Amino acid sequence: MTQLSRRERRQQAEEFLKNCSNQNFPNSKKVYVEGTLHGVKVGMREISLADSLVGGDEKNPILEPNEPIRVYDTSGPYTEEGLDIDVHKGLAKLRESWIEQRDDTEVLPAATSGYSQQRLADEGLDHIRFENLPKVRRAKNGKNVTQMHYAKQGIITPEMEYIAIRENMKLQKFKDDSLTQQHPGRSFGAVIGSPEMPDEITPEFVRDEVARGRAIIPSNINHPEAEPMIIGRNFLIKVNANIGNSAVTSSIEEEVEKLVWSTKWGADTVMDLSTGRYIHETREWIIRNSPVPIGTVPIYQALEKVNGIAENLTWEIFRDTLIEQAEQGVDYFTIHAGVLLRYVPMTAKRVTGIVSRGGSIMAKWCLAHHKENFLYTHFEDICQICKAYDVSFSLGDGLRPGSIADANDEAQFSELRTLGELTKIAWRHDVQVMIEGPGHVPLHMVKENMEEQLKHCHEAPFYTLGPLTTDIAPGYDHITSGIGAANIGWYGCAMLCYVTPKEHLGLPNKEDVKEGLITYKLAAHAGDLAKGHPGAQIRDNALSKARFEFRWLDQFNLGLDPERAREYHDETLPQDSGKVAHFCSMCGPKFCSMKITQEVRDYAKGLESGDAIEVKMVDFEGDREQALAQEQASLDAEKGMAEMSEQFKSQGSEIYRLAD
Amino acid sequence: MTQLSRRERRQQAEEFLKNCSNQNFPNSKKVYVEGTLHGVKVGMREISLADSLVGGDEKNPILEPNEPIRVYDTSGPYTEEGLDIDVHKGLAKLRESWIEQRDDTEVLPAATSGYSQQRLADEGLDHIRFENLPKVRRAKNGKNVTQMHYAKQGIITPEMEYIAIRENMKLQKFKDDSLTQQHPGRSFGAVIGSPEMPDEITPEFVRDEVARGRAIIPSNINHPEAEPMIIGRNFLIKVNANIGNSAVTSSIEEEVEKLVWSTKWGADTVMDLSTGRYIHETREWIIRNSPVPIGTVPIYQALEKVNGIAENLTWEIFRDTLIEQAEQGVDYFTIHAGVLLRYVPMTAKRVTGIVSRGGSIMAKWCLAHHKENFLYTHFEDICQICKAYDVSFSLGDGLRPGSIADANDEAQFSELRTLGELTKIAWRHDVQVMIEGPGHVPLHMVKENMEEQLKHCHEAPFYTLGPLTTDIAPGYDHITSGIGAANIGWYGCAMLCYVTPKEHLGLPNKEDVKEGLITYKLAAHAGDLAKGHPGAQIRDNALSKARFEFRWLDQFNLGLDPERAREYHDETLPQDSGKVAHFCSMCGPKFCSMKITQEVRDYAKGLESGDAIEVKMVDFEGDREQALAQEQASLDAEKGMAEMSEQFKSQGSEIYRLAD
Repeated sequence: MTQLSRRERRQQAEEFLKNCSNQNFPNSKKVYVEGTLHGVKVGMREISLADSLVGGDEKNPILEPNEPIRVYDTSGPYTEEGLDIDVHKGLAKLRESWIEQRDDTEVLPAATSGYSQQRLADEGLDHIRFENLPKVRRAKNGKNVTQMHYAKQGIITPEMEYIAIRENMKLQKFKDDSLTQQHPGRSFGAVIGSPEMPDEITPEFVRDEVARGRAIIPSNINHPEAEPMIIGRNFLIKVNANIGNSAVTSSIEEEVEKLVWSTKWGADTVMDLSTGRYIHETREWIIRNSPVPIGTVPIYQALEKVNGIAENLTWEIFRDTLIEQAEQGVDYFTIHAGVLLRYVPMTAKRVTGIVSRGGSIMAKWCLAHHKENFLYTHFEDICQICKAYDVSFSLGDGLRPGSIADANDEAQFSELRTLGELTKIAWRHDVQVMIEGPGHVPLHMVKENMEEQLKHCHEAPFYTLGPLTTDIAPGYDHITSGIGAANIGWYGCAMLCYVTPKEHLGLPNKEDVKEGLITYKLAAHAGDLAKGHPGAQIRDNALSKARFEFRWLDQFNLGLDPERAREYHDETLPQDSGKVAHFCSMCGPKFCSMKITQEVRDYAKGLESGDAIEVKMVDFEGDREQALAQEQASLDAEKGMAEMSEQFKSQGSEIYRLAD
Repeated sequence: MTQLSRRERRQQAEEFLKNCSNQNFPNSKKVYVEGTLHGVKVGMREISLADSLVGGDEKNPILEPNEPIRVYDTSGPYTEEGLDIDVHKGLAKLRESWIEQRDDTEVLPAATSGYSQQRLADEGLDHIRFENLPKVRRAKNGKNVTQMHYAKQGIITPEMEYIAIRENMKLQKFKDDSLTQQHPGRSFGAVIGSPEMPDEITPEFVRDEVARGRAIIPSNINHPEAEPMIIGRNFLIKVNANIGNSAVTSSIEEEVEKLVWSTKWGADTVMDLSTGRYIHETREWIIRNSPVPIGTVPIYQALEKVNGIAENLTWEIFRDTLIEQAEQGVDYFTIHAGVLLRYVPMTAKRVTGIVSRGGSIMAKWCLAHHKENFLYTHFEDICQICKAYDVSFSLGDGLRPGSIADANDEAQFSELRTLGELTKIAWRHDVQVMIEGPGHVPLHMVKENMEEQLKHCHEAPFYTLGPLTTDIAPGYDHITSGIGAANIGWYGCAMLCYVTPKEHLGLPNKEDVKEGLITYKLAAHAGDLAKGHPGAQIRDNALSKARFEFRWLDQFNLGLDPERAREYHDETLPQDSGKVAHFCSMCGPKFCSMKITQEVRDYAKGLESGDAIEVKMVDFEGDREQALAQEQASLDAEKGMAEMSEQFKSQGSEIYRLAD
């Protein structure tokens, strides 16, 4: 791996951002499906496929077309062909008119946060400031502008319609049954995969789930650039990517690059965990260019404001930080309001104490002041802010285990129960809530996490970091945690926070971000298949069909990472002819199981159509010796057998034999 | 990724083989534990650790030593310090005297396989032949030399004693309870993790498991170089690495390199799946240099002998191939004896037909001849060969699913039931058996595979390829399958056949082999933790303790891949000082959750010892408002609170405060 200097990394990032438009995947284009309620236009990626060769010969092949496959697309305008994106201007404001039409918000003359005003007034920041700042919007006095509030009043918003179309995997009525075939899922009491589940996800279903608090739509009115998406256990499992600079390394350019890069590789939301000097400015750049919801941990910035001294934190500083971020457009806040004073000593005998940064900050504050966590005591004040901008809660698990040894302990589950208590309070304000979860948990204890969360948090969506299923593989924690993530996703977890290969070791670079994301996309998809999300198996079926038919390019393009698949294939068979070869490098041209299978299939077809002699089935029961003798006798008695077998042999070397 | 030419790859391999001795991991050395029954000496890796800093100051730190950790070691003599290994001579014959002492085998004047004799006589092969060929050994007339045979007669062999010591994770009585703490496992009816399980794995326990057929010890008498190991669900989950050249690419040197490389990174067994021209010679090189059991799929070579034309295969050619390989020292054979004629048409409507190479060869043979699979009809003849050399069966799953769509279908489970039938036959001959399994299976259908296997195969060990839990991630199938592998390992699967990132795309190179292995080692370990293997958690605990105490080098060295962990850390903090830094690059020096936790811990210690004021616990019940008011009142009433909090603040910036 080449080591880049800070300057080189920054230059690369600048170069990337200059060319971030038109990032289409091979053989893919953006298509739009229009809604009938609000006329929303939902972008998705359509992958076109080559024809299948079903007969004929080289001169006159008989071909059968394969329908294009549509897949969920988080990349927004960056993969829209012909669109010229300037990160200095930010993305188009998709939701602006929807928000305006609701007529329950007002444009403020200026940002109301003191800190925002101070940063804006600071000329020393001009060189790094995002120039094209939008007006700040807030709920009109007395209005509640959350999606949950609308949902509870029976209103289907454009956001909900958008999501229904987006979530729906059965957009096309495929002619080919083999594509839509799917194993029934097992979803542990979720609606998904059960008879209650509608065949297609409807806008009304979305509304109902949001109203019940079983799903959230993170959608700050100050982030109209984001495409609506939903987090809940009766929907596709989502993946979050963490980015953010730290005190030690990385620049704004790199963070924006990582944002765009993350959405290309499937991040459904992105958390900006910056802790450096320019948190405010970095975040503005990120939000203005993000097609996905942005989450933050506001306590990180509040801590910066008190020079890193946790005990100097105050509610006033924190409150101003919340308003600052809400007015920039942050879609969800991680709030560690469950780290109660009395839980802190429960962590003292752990192998790894408190590993959540937010959790340890609050623990330190509680101990220093010997007072209850101010996030807890001011929780309703926070709700007031959230509902004025529609910022969702991501209730932080400050006491999550940092090692296998500490999994599922008293501290962790005590905090979880408090998060359940806070969920009910937030819901009284119609503020949307999800719950954060661990962390490090051995495989057999993962399910307990989901069960406890469902029980104590009233089905509010669960959002976990992994969990890592062992501690012994630093450098591979995307995988140790991808295992836990796939399992907890199957059990009902709604969103999985990715882990990169650098976890525990350093800050992820671009390649790490991609590696983490693909790992989590495949884990989430494994969970969707297991839950039985309608239509989830279509992509697997299409890819496997392509694989079986040696449509190499289709196999690459249907995969989560077409670039790597092709690159790996190129390593062994770099020639273009290899991409249409009816064999693969593993077995070579003469000896290929898939090739042989095709012959078996042709043979079976012959059997069915009566062209060939029927295979005599012999019941093997009781003694095997007897059965063998019986079978041999039966085979011997069969007339025409030798002829039949000769016929097959003579055709043996022909692949794709005509039905003639 | 740099692309190497064939010549370059070969040169690199030669270079590697010249320097394959002394491959120690950092801060690790080989130690030996001696048995009391047979005096066997069992090699394992001991990782030494730095001291923990528990108090004092920079000038006079108070240190506490950390006991070294011993881990299971598959690398054999290659990590023995000071040993000079010459791959042209092969490894020392560890088991030779044990085999001799049993006095039930004889040294043959020459190899008895016609093909072996022919290859030996071919001077054209001299340039690639392994020079230091050992004498061939076979059971004396009428003798059965399998470990199962000995076990059934109550004999504890040196192999069994070796394994008991090797499997035992509690070799050391750790003084530190925090290291040996472990969550109770959940093992779905296995002995492991149940009250029946002995505290330590005893030689008698090993014998009993082998006698019952619940575990196998692949240990051909012609492969005395191998260190004994066991495969069974009441033992550590094992990992197999596939190597082998193909018709398209790679050389003998590269395959031997991959073998040595595989055992370094934890392969418990290695399968040589070569399909090229020099299968016989390649295999000799591999076996003579392998400290782990070697498996093969003999039908691959038999097919080469009939120029790739499956229908020309005969029992005689196959029989000679089995003898050829058994006399070279192959420890287990994959035999696709369950692909019955009547099962073949069941695969015709699958999305991906038959994907097992062995399965498709046999299917083609059956159809061409319209006869029952000769591996099935000659199964007892194969048993006769196996028991004369102690070759174990790995009953192949020729009809395993090649896609999510085809999982758990009629063809797959029909074959599985036949494998169960064959297991009983093998056991009548005291031949050891394991059963191969899929393949591609969605997460929620994995468990059914284990359950069906246990039910129909009478608890013979299960050995699965993955399974892959989704088809949509070519390039990442080590991960899609690692998820399935961890799960099925937990459910009771005894050995996991690794999948590399190149699966479906090309032949794995060295880096792919390593990536696949580490993925599978961590998956197997996740399974061991979940099953509750005694002592499995020690390594996790030690690593997490090191992590928490900022012992960076210990964290790297306790991991599965110390090199990568260090490399990743170097990317952000390349200076040596970073390796002793009491912070990490993620949060920087001022803002670190682990640092804060240490303060919390110090504080809690103070609480416990009565130095500080007791934390008042308040029961939160009923109304939260009331509880808050109650708590506030209680806090206010507490005397000395302010003083206490000031005291903590004043100490806040000191880490590792003295107990003074």
